[in-house]
Amino acid sequence: MPFDMGLIQRGARLRRSPFFAATQRYGARAYTVYNHMLFPVCFGDLEDEYWHLVNHVTLWDVAVERQVEITGPDAFAFTNMLTPRDLSRCAVGQGKYVVITADDGGIINDPVLLRLGENHFWLALADSDVLLWARGVVLSSGLRVEIREPDVSPLQVQGPKAKAVVRALFGDAVLALRYYYFLETALDGIPVVVTRTGWSGEVGYEIYLRDGSRGEELWERIMAAGRPHDIRPTGPSDIRRVEAGIFNWGADFTLANNVYEVGLDRLVDAGKPAGYIGRDALARIKADGVRQKLVGIEIDGDRIEFNATKWRVKAGNEAVGWVTSAIWSPRLKKNIGYAMLPVAHASLGTSVGLEIPDVGERGATVVPLPFVDPGKGIPKG
Amino acid sequence: MPFDMGLIQRGARLRRSPFFAATQRYGARAYTVYNHMLFPVCFGDLEDEYWHLVNHVTLWDVAVERQVEITGPDAFAFTNMLTPRDLSRCAVGQGKYVVITADDGGIINDPVLLRLGENHFWLALADSDVLLWARGVVLSSGLRVEIREPDVSPLQVQGPKAKAVVRALFGDAVLALRYYYFLETALDGIPVVVTRTGWSGEVGYEIYLRDGSRGEELWERIMAAGRPHDIRPTGPSDIRRVEAGIFNWGADFTLANNVYEVGLDRLVDAGKPAGYIGRDALARIKADGVRQKLVGIEIDGDRIEFNATKWRVKAGNEAVGWVTSAIWSPRLKKNIGYAMLPVAHASLGTSVGLEIPDVGERGATVVPLPFVDPGKGIPKG
Repeated sequence: MPFDMGLIQRGARLRRSPFFAATQRYGARAYTVYNHMLFPVCFGDLEDEYWHLVNHVTLWDVAVERQVEITGPDAFAFTNMLTPRDLSRCAVGQGKYVVITADDGGIINDPVLLRLGENHFWLALADSDVLLWARGVVLSSGLRVEIREPDVSPLQVQGPKAKAVVRALFGDAVLALRYYYFLETALDGIPVVVTRTGWSGEVGYEIYLRDGSRGEELWERIMAAGRPHDIRPTGPSDIRRVEAGIFNWGADFTLANNVYEVGLDRLVDAGKPAGYIGRDALARIKADGVRQKLVGIEIDGDRIEFNATKWRVKAGNEAVGWVTSAIWSPRLKKNIGYAMLPVAHASLGTSVGLEIPDVGERGATVVPLPFVDPGKGIPKG
Repeated sequence: MPFDMGLIQRGARLRRSPFFAATQRYGARAYTVYNHMLFPVCFGDLEDEYWHLVNHVTLWDVAVERQVEITGPDAFAFTNMLTPRDLSRCAVGQGKYVVITADDGGIINDPVLLRLGENHFWLALADSDVLLWARGVVLSSGLRVEIREPDVSPLQVQGPKAKAVVRALFGDAVLALRYYYFLETALDGIPVVVTRTGWSGEVGYEIYLRDGSRGEELWERIMAAGRPHDIRPTGPSDIRRVEAGIFNWGADFTLANNVYEVGLDRLVDAGKPAGYIGRDALARIKADGVRQKLVGIEIDGDRIEFNATKWRVKAGNEAVGWVTSAIWSPRLKKNIGYAMLPVAHASLGTSVGLEIPDVGERGATVVPLPFVDPGKGIPKG
């Protein structure tokens, strides 16, 4: 098990999801905190939850993916300033995985962006206050936009039987959705957006609730539609997301890192015209080359516990980098993860040493990502 | 007890304080999360910790008060843009309690600001990413500043015997500090800043560690100096801070509120020249008057548990507002707290009704703040 401790809710500072009561009723065993909000991350055993995701279908309360909504006559121009992806290539009804970059190229956040209208965007956030960044940036921009946190709370339905569940809820139209597209619809009058996205590497959907007062109803409707398919409320699976080569902002990278270090080069559209934040810095970093890289690693020996801190990486006796995520894959029967390493130690096949708290030294090898091919659930190579 | 649940640390996303190992060793029983970091808030019983704070001295790990450091030739001009307080009245060596305001007058954060040099400031933050706000604001400002999170981690030493403890550590110089002043010094070579500030309403100091690698040493030095005075590691006391009329950003007010609603009018310096963010909005709000006010309340009946959500306030059958904080004061033998109420229901002596989850309806009365006079520990009135 990851590091377990008591969480105390002292006062009303930490917000609750519209699904909070449901997660309590369904036996959420542990929470974390994300975007100032309680986030249920475990209902039973993390390895059981992984197998259920891989073989069946799971329901996650990810209302912590708070939205920044950008509207107004200049919403396109402004949102397009925030990211190196070229949003002129994002149609209404389409989403994109984007990075929000600082002027030095640092990654402020890596949200899923949805384009709901020509001048209407949502950013479904990782754990940082992009609302404050965006409101700071717009101040002197002269652009006419409104930036706010709307009443929107996503759920994820993930796993091979997710298609059957969303079909039962929304009909065939939703099955036609291509990856990262969405539709705006309603379920018994509950307004939602359904996207073909997720944080699992399995087939999956997100259902964005647009009226927080109807969380209970939506949760129970999904559970009812999922029961024939053995749906289970769980937390997101770190085992599965590491197998898929998916990163977690705050752990695998932060504001101190840029896309070229973490292998997200594809999130910079080379032909995008000037005028977006971080462009010059990113061009310079690309031209100069990076000094460190986030790479896949396999760790020798017996099953390890999921890292609660970053572990030291050594080359001989020299400390050279950090493990950002490391976890046991029950399917691959291997310890897998990511490490941030100087380029001299980042080539495939390089051997390094790890210092694992309470365990000791372990060898590790740099390997390709992902560990399991996307969408297929089949181990690679 | 406040609402208790499991906290799971899944991966290395949540940061640990330089004092984390010490808090574990000294028996921290529960944590919360604040500024993306684990925050030990209870070592035993919250009421015992309150009495220890009131009668003796307590040590708190508040490394979660992350700093934004602003330096560079235009650091004064830039920092002075961020707040309605006039920083020309803040000497080097002095601190101020400030609000960081958005362009609409909303409260982004309410840090303690320290002026370490003519052009060198720290903001010791409540729980929001002011680093992102400041970096967004500076982009188009043309000002030459650097904005970063330095390696600085505060502790608080609070309680009537705090003076004796800091005197044992730093000598008489520290006793001469006036409220909100500070000194830069070292303890066995450990670089620190000591401020005459705190979140308790008792006499207290904060010790800002300036080298995270020396957290263990500093903690043990303070514990050793405090032992003759019966020092105890505890969390901050919500009982004591509510008695003192101190607010908690995120619970008692948020970005949706302004200083005039929450009675922090004194944080706007009337004579401050134009050029700071939120000035026009605040002037308009002040001229128009506010529609709601944060007020003190006393709640009828038996001891209540500290609220984990905001409770509904009713006037007759009409829902009119919310309780933001409510807690039992063992010293006053009363339930006390704050409520955000329309001005029509905010006058002293007004009776309202509360809906308390799992308890039912309770009467409450609007009363003056604070409940206990500052620094004196003597109940008011």
